[in-house]
Amino acid sequence: MNYPSGIKKQLNSNKSTTTINYKNRGMTLEAELNISNEYYRKIDKAFIYKKPTPIKITKVDYPTRNKTIIKEAFFTIPSTTDYNGLYNEKYIDFEAKETASKTSFSLANIHKHQIKHIENISNHGGIAFLIVRFTTLNETYLLPAKTFLDFLRETKRKSIPITFFREKAYRIKDGYRPRIDYLKIIDENIGGI
Amino acid sequence: MNYPSGIKKQLNSNKSTTTINYKNRGMTLEAELNISNEYYRKIDKAFIYKKPTPIKITKVDYPTRNKTIIKEAFFTIPSTTDYNGLYNEKYIDFEAKETASKTSFSLANIHKHQIKHIENISNHGGIAFLIVRFTTLNETYLLPAKTFLDFLRETKRKSIPITFFREKAYRIKDGYRPRIDYLKIIDENIGGI
Repeated sequence: MNYPSGIKKQLNSNKSTTTINYKNRGMTLEAELNISNEYYRKIDKAFIYKKPTPIKITKVDYPTRNKTIIKEAFFTIPSTTDYNGLYNEKYIDFEAKETASKTSFSLANIHKHQIKHIENISNHGGIAFLIVRFTTLNETYLLPAKTFLDFLRETKRKSIPITFFREKAYRIKDGYRPRIDYLKIIDENIGGI
Repeated sequence: MNYPSGIKKQLNSNKSTTTINYKNRGMTLEAELNISNEYYRKIDKAFIYKKPTPIKITKVDYPTRNKTIIKEAFFTIPSTTDYNGLYNEKYIDFEAKETASKTSFSLANIHKHQIKHIENISNHGGIAFLIVRFTTLNETYLLPAKTFLDFLRETKRKSIPITFFREKAYRIKDGYRPRIDYLKIIDENIGGI
């Protein structure tokens, strides 16, 4: 299970983002998506949020009337994807994952009920997809739900080869504002998603 | 701040739900909404979920390689509403609150940024609303975003009187399957929401 955002490497606010050459400087996909979503909200374009990490709380302390401290809790398996929201009257829903592999994206990264969720969303007129980053290659892709689900139906593979992404998914180029302009892919290919 | 679902009174699975007279037997609004949403998913009608409670994790333990225990964490203020999802190609977004008051619903229950969020969703073609239950009166209402926002603009009151709910909101009657059929209100009044 991934670390939750609270203990993940924090997005630092140094000036590297103002230089012209804005490569990934160790910023996680999640951090980049969070600032991209923040940017979309700021320009009143879309309202998409990462859901909090689901946890099961087993012990709490109440040192004062208005304060609660969680003293023991465990991460639980999410039943949905991590991100959802509203764009242009449409329901948007996606999962974002990084892999260090240069050759494929392991399907062990996506839970069975998340696949079912993506299928439900796709069947009911929502726009569902995966965003997958191959960190070593520095290539980021938007893989539409239908293309993803077709792959699962048509093969018994336990991973999706990078060649499949290069042929069938949409490459998201690094940007500045927003850093990951995934809604541009939606705008340009909405019919196909 | 409300207790998160993890330490709230749990939904019990006794047989009271199978009797004909199905009054609220101390079940919280949240528990009833959760089983209603579960029912909507089961019949493939809508995919609406409660978001996990947002927390800030400050200490974690790794007793074994695959186990993580959160040893200290705090509840944080949510930036959005608690529930969202997809129904009939539409983005659905709402906040649910209970009050023991017989006369009014205090606006202290809704954070400023939640109001802004509801406004954003409403402006961008999402279906946003509040579900408010007056527990003592056993009256539950769906208050559409526009009606709620108009109230805020037109008055300087710090609470919404029960009379306003009775006149301008939609009463949701207790049901069996689902217990809180709020999508029926959407179906019947979609133009006005």
